[in-house]
Amino acid sequence: MKVHGTHYRTIWADDRERVHIIDQRRLPHEFVVLELKSLADAAEAIRDMAVRGAPLIGATAAFGVALGLSADPSEAGLRRAVAALEETRPTAVNLRWALNRMLNALVSLPRDLRRAAAFAKAREIADEDVAMCRRIARHGADLIFELADSRQGARVNILTHCNAGWLATVDWGTALAPIYHAFDDGAAIHVWVDETRPRSQGAALTAWELQAHGIPCTLITDNAGGHLMQRGMVDMCLVGTDRTTATGDVANKIGTYLKALAARDNGIPFYVALPHSTIDWNATDGLREIPIEERSPVEVLTVTGRTADGAIVPVDVAPSGTRAANPAFDVTPARLVSALITDRGVCPASRDGLLSLFPERA
Amino acid sequence: MKVHGTHYRTIWADDRERVHIIDQRRLPHEFVVLELKSLADAAEAIRDMAVRGAPLIGATAAFGVALGLSADPSEAGLRRAVAALEETRPTAVNLRWALNRMLNALVSLPRDLRRAAAFAKAREIADEDVAMCRRIARHGADLIFELADSRQGARVNILTHCNAGWLATVDWGTALAPIYHAFDDGAAIHVWVDETRPRSQGAALTAWELQAHGIPCTLITDNAGGHLMQRGMVDMCLVGTDRTTATGDVANKIGTYLKALAARDNGIPFYVALPHSTIDWNATDGLREIPIEERSPVEVLTVTGRTADGAIVPVDVAPSGTRAANPAFDVTPARLVSALITDRGVCPASRDGLLSLFPERA
Repeated sequence: MKVHGTHYRTIWADDRERVHIIDQRRLPHEFVVLELKSLADAAEAIRDMAVRGAPLIGATAAFGVALGLSADPSEAGLRRAVAALEETRPTAVNLRWALNRMLNALVSLPRDLRRAAAFAKAREIADEDVAMCRRIARHGADLIFELADSRQGARVNILTHCNAGWLATVDWGTALAPIYHAFDDGAAIHVWVDETRPRSQGAALTAWELQAHGIPCTLITDNAGGHLMQRGMVDMCLVGTDRTTATGDVANKIGTYLKALAARDNGIPFYVALPHSTIDWNATDGLREIPIEERSPVEVLTVTGRTADGAIVPVDVAPSGTRAANPAFDVTPARLVSALITDRGVCPASRDGLLSLFPERA
Repeated sequence: MKVHGTHYRTIWADDRERVHIIDQRRLPHEFVVLELKSLADAAEAIRDMAVRGAPLIGATAAFGVALGLSADPSEAGLRRAVAALEETRPTAVNLRWALNRMLNALVSLPRDLRRAAAFAKAREIADEDVAMCRRIARHGADLIFELADSRQGARVNILTHCNAGWLATVDWGTALAPIYHAFDDGAAIHVWVDETRPRSQGAALTAWELQAHGIPCTLITDNAGGHLMQRGMVDMCLVGTDRTTATGDVANKIGTYLKALAARDNGIPFYVALPHSTIDWNATDGLREIPIEERSPVEVLTVTGRTADGAIVPVDVAPSGTRAANPAFDVTPARLVSALITDRGVCPASRDGLLSLFPERA
């Protein structure tokens, strides 16, 4: 999407096959483009969260393999590159999926063709992600335009939680993709951005990327959304998901469930956007079957931000010695989800709904 | 309550009529007792939020009048003291109520009796607050013990939001009063403490005062409570209220409504503790009739905490230029409140419920 008028992806190779990323560790305070010059640079970027978001991690790993082959195009070099990238983020599913694709495509090629083929494959993986997010964008934008029509020109107020934007993918995003698409097509939109403690992805990433693209938005605390819904100030909720059961339950960033409850209590549609790769066709009960990551209490006990003199530092918000719990996700049951917006279209959050779009899974 | 074994109130006059407060601006990082030496000190303590919480503001104003009369016991001096204190926090109801009581009790006295009478009256106002909170403590503790009995010795997990503890009153608190009482009487209790962005009163004050008294607690983000309730990890919610309608709607710190929705969705009792002074007998529809204070966006855009080198500073969490909204309270409709815990006893959150305890209002 656009950063103050210029189009960017979160990762790209230029025509001389130099690989660039946006350093997300510096956002929202500084916009810095980094060149990844080697396999080690790519692994470090993933490990240290200069890039984050499952689709973007996958694409970065693919380019990492290509950079590795630039230095050592042997089969041993290929396997070393894959192994080094694989251990950067142990739980990221897309990472392993992208690395397997690279390995399968490259291992049987002659050594002198590997490097060029690797760059081509990495570009393909990135382009596929963009195409999938674009399809989500188009399907979701239809829902926004329907609402806009019913509001006769008054702007549509959309509440989102966490960052499911283009910064989490190669471009467009998932939950924010329909918002970008509808905005670019002329819809009057305003976005309520939940801060999303503890890591504040709403404040740091969503507020930044929406503003950089020129979309009006207002930052709120995670506590405020229910009040705004009670007062008629939210027309639609639109969030992403990290894992979706075959029955339409969604596991998303902690706090999503609370917004879904408030949406239902106030008759506001609650939509969840997802690429089909997040559907876990084996899971049928989100609360019982989706494991919830418990992250470090340090994220709850501290907040990282910029001081008056420009340093980006963590500050303690609780007394020293305080115990904290930090579940990273919660499960919103399908009964609270108005519809799922997938790359194949919009469907009810139910087994029948999903099978209507993915009949091959029946 | 106790601070590491020693009993404190939030404000007290010693036997030489020196007035002391706990400087709440320094919490949770430092425990500092300040002496208020003059009317100006008292006014500054209220204005700069060294003391906060409606009951404590009222008591501080009362002692402020007494300090003012130490310097100038004339009627003009009395009126000047009242006027100076009145303008410190323009919207605090208890402040005006306490100042009117002081004025009425002192204005007709001879000049040389005023100072001693003022200290006596201020002590009376503080003692009354303590007695009222103690009654709330006793009534609410019955509910905790009932739950504890049904759990056969397993600890009772109570979720609270914001700070309705002894730091907001002279002692005991409102929502935390039953917790202190039950804990001191031997109940096995653990408290989930919501951070309460944007001002983080949960992290800064509630976590501090519970730990200082020795009550086990765990800090969580405001996003986490719904997830914990889904998993059976919360047995009861217990919060305060800033204003309660005659029909049982409650306006409390922003985010309370979201927790009430989650409690209902999971069959968990949701209790609200209040001194009868917060009941607005003229209001019957909280959503329509209770005005919601909109505070500075700076509170949302920044977080104040302690850096590694010990400085307490604000840090920016959003891109510069970000717009933020900051409603300070939300309204939880009576239908989501399991019961009200008042200084006269426990009642349903309804007109009939309240009138059963306050028949003189019929």
